Amino acid sequence: MPKILITRRERFAASHRLARADWSDARNLEVFGKCSNPNGHGHNYELWVTVKGEQDLGTSFVTDLSRLSRLINERVIQHLDHKNIDVDVPFMRGKLSSTENLAVAIWHELEAPIKALGCALHGVKVQETENNSVEYHGE
Amino acid sequence: MPKILITRRERFAASHRLARADWSDARNLEVFGKCSNPNGHGHNYELWVTVKGEQDLGTSFVTDLSRLSRLINERVIQHLDHKNIDVDVPFMRGKLSSTENLAVAIWHELEAPIKALGCALHGVKVQETENNSVEYHGE
Amino acid sequence: MPKILITRRERFAASHRLARADWSDARNLEVFGKCSNPNGHGHNYELWVTVKGEQDLGTSFVTDLSRLSRLINERVIQHLDHKNIDVDVPFMRGKLSSTENLAVAIWHELEAPIKALGCALHGVKVQETENNSVEYHGE
Amino acid sequence: MPKILITRRERFAASHRLARADWSDARNLEVFGKCSNPNGHGHNYELWVTVKGEQDLGTSFVTDLSRLSRLINERVIQHLDHKNIDVDVPFMRGKLSSTENLAVAIWHELEAPIKALGCALHGVKVQETENNSVEYHGE
Amino acid sequence: MPKILITRRERFAASHRLARADWSDARNLEVFGKCSNPNGHGHNYELWVTVKGEQDLGTSFVTDLSRLSRLINERVIQHLDHKNIDVDVPFMRGKLSSTENLAVAIWHELEAPIKALGCALHGVKVQETENNSVEYHGE
Amino acid sequence: MPKILITRRERFAASHRLARADWSDARNLEVFGKCSNPNGHGHNYELWVTVKGEQDLGTSFVTDLSRLSRLINERVIQHLDHKNIDVDVPFMRGKLSSTENLAVAIWHELEAPIKALGCALHGVKVQETENNSVEYHGE
Repeated sequence: MPKILITRRERFAASHRLARADWSDARNLEVFGKCSNPNGHGHNYELWVTVKGEQDLGTSFVTDLSRLSRLINERVIQHLDHKNIDVDVPFMRGKLSSTENLAVAIWHELEAPIKALGCALHGVKVQETENNSVEYHGE
Repeated sequence: MPKILITRRERFAASHRLARADWSDARNLEVFGKCSNPNGHGHNYELWVTVKGEQDLGTSFVTDLSRLSRLINERVIQHLDHKNIDVDVPFMRGKLSSTENLAVAIWHELEAPIKALGCALHGVKVQETENNSVEYHGE
Repeated sequence: MPKILITRRERFAASHRLARADWSDARNLEVFGKCSNPNGHGHNYELWVTVKGEQDLGTSFVTDLSRLSRLINERVIQHLDHKNIDVDVPFMRGKLSSTENLAVAIWHELEAPIKALGCALHGVKVQETENNSVEYHGE
Repeated sequence: MPKILITRRERFAASHRLARADWSDARNLEVFGKCSNPNGHGHNYELWVTVKGEQDLGTSFVTDLSRLSRLINERVIQHLDHKNIDVDVPFMRGKLSSTENLAVAIWHELEAPIKALGCALHGVKVQETENNSVEYHGE
Repeated sequence: MPKILITRRERFAASHRLARADWSDARNLEVFGKCSNPNGHGHNYELWVTVKGEQDLGTSFVTDLSRLSRLINERVIQHLDHKNIDVDVPFMRGKLSSTENLAVAIWHELEAPIKALGCALHGVKVQETENNSVEYHGE
Repeated sequence: MPKILITRRERFAASHRLARADWSDARNLEVFGKCSNPNGHGHNYELWVTVKGEQDLGTSFVTDLSRLSRLINERVIQHLDHKNIDVDVPFMRGKLSSTENLAVAIWHELEAPIKALGCALHGVKVQETENNSVEYHGE
């Protein structure tokens, strides 16, 4: 059976600030620059979730995309969209809200439920701006 | 002499929250929905500034685009980029951070200095998400 | 009070075929080319609805964008999305499914209910492919 | 010799409907939702074909892109563009017109002729909407 | 009869250099900056041609888009695509290859033949980079 | 420690011509077509540089993106932007200015300095037009 990748894009608008509580404001500013401005900023994040699997004999789908979309919304988007990543998001608690940490945390939120759909999470890509993005493949 | 429009795109990443201080949290939430979530959210805003004028006989330019870009950055972008619109931005003080108010405020920041370049501000367009945008033409 | 334009993008995926019932297949093919292929084809249409008005003193909005989106979905998108424009769409009955006719018909579906929101429909833009689009301003 | 990937994008506008002939309309609707609406719908599909190979010593090309484009058009695009995938497309006969099946079928149409150009087909990506896409790498 | 706007996008890849023959290299560099670098540079230009008119009673088209595309290609694109604007393009001879001059010159190439199609040229927009564009409406 | 990919996009506008000095103009034209037009042409190139590594324990970054951007600008973009690739670019000297050669040359410019940042260059993607791109992964 062929192994196929399917990708679903979702979006969320969120605010955040890069700053370690155990560093001074001066050090945070030196290391994180404008991303550490005291009152935060925000982004329209784009998220691509890629799933790998074989086709279902009945539907020819790797997985039903509307079900996949619903799952991503329940596990990830509803916690992030129109939220402050540093304050509101359970799976980001205690972590710097860097795009790296977001991508890894989203991977861990999705890995098990996507397995339960009968396929495998292949990649999570988070784009913070049109120039910057991060991908995680579970390695 | 032909009248020509030139448009410069700039971008800023900012956080904000829609909420009136003279309304209860409940009323803010009822009217503004998720845009009123207590800890704010954010966007990658895109800004298009359109200028109208005649061509300079020497350069054939309506206006020098790098000068126009510098002006937009000094007057607008540096105040908004990686900032919290509700707290950090002088020209938004005391105003709801709606896209409508942003577009009108940016118009007023740019109108005079663009006139000083020898041309006329024609339009300000602010895009908040890929689905929503606001334009103001000074009417 | 300033007059401001706000634009909402919506999307629909639909099939259609350009062919007049009162023309022969040969003539349809000669005039409409591949757009007249007998079994139809389809597009991911993009629709931009632009509304003009003054700001509400309470919200600073020209109109609430989620209400505008709901209105466009009820009046237009639900009739077109995942449909055959030539067969399924009440407001396109008896008309060629050209992008021109779509834009004008969508204008007529939206003009009155947008007036009822307290603002004015300013423009309807329908993009059929990345290279082709049509705009109607009610002239 | 370095191994390089080159990618060519092509586009096609097509209609289709997801429905199994051996299922009732009710079951098709339950499983495929709006994609099973009786009169079909359509998309502007985007296709990215990625080829892998070494550079030609004379031209420095992995393969001539205008030749690759011609090949993709002859083998794939001319059969799909402005067509009904369920009725008109030889290589989709008897298959559900899911994006998964499209990507695999296009792979099989292109694998041999691209080998004949002296390089290897590396991936076929089909995007159905701005939110959904499928990739096949011949695994 | 309603007045409708239709827009066709075309593209061309061209090289150019901003420099006046009657100015020294030093002055050109001072005024035009990196756009005056001695060996030139280039862009993927995008061109949107907007035409205004009433619908044909037979086809419902303002004008046939494939005919409009052919006209734009014959009059404009074939002279610019994969060319050096400063050397190769008849309608740019003796002019600085600024985006302003390009937009006005393209307007003059297209105005009469579009009138001959039975509609009116409404606007020419030339985008030089994702951040810079110029529009001319014949004023 | 998880292995993460981060990607930075940069852009450059450059001119070039495909032509071998040891071939006649006629042969160059036959092989390279319009890309060999005598006075050259140009593109808005887009460059994606992908870096792979583990997260820094202090910042959670794979590498600081503004530092990565500065490095790409110093080593690559400043040599290519608003330049003629065939004449002005040290690392393209003596090579055909094909997208394949560009991608491989950019890889070699970036491999060592990115290693010095403590991570590994994973991929270089160069997009010449919206339809054509080349990727190199150092194989």
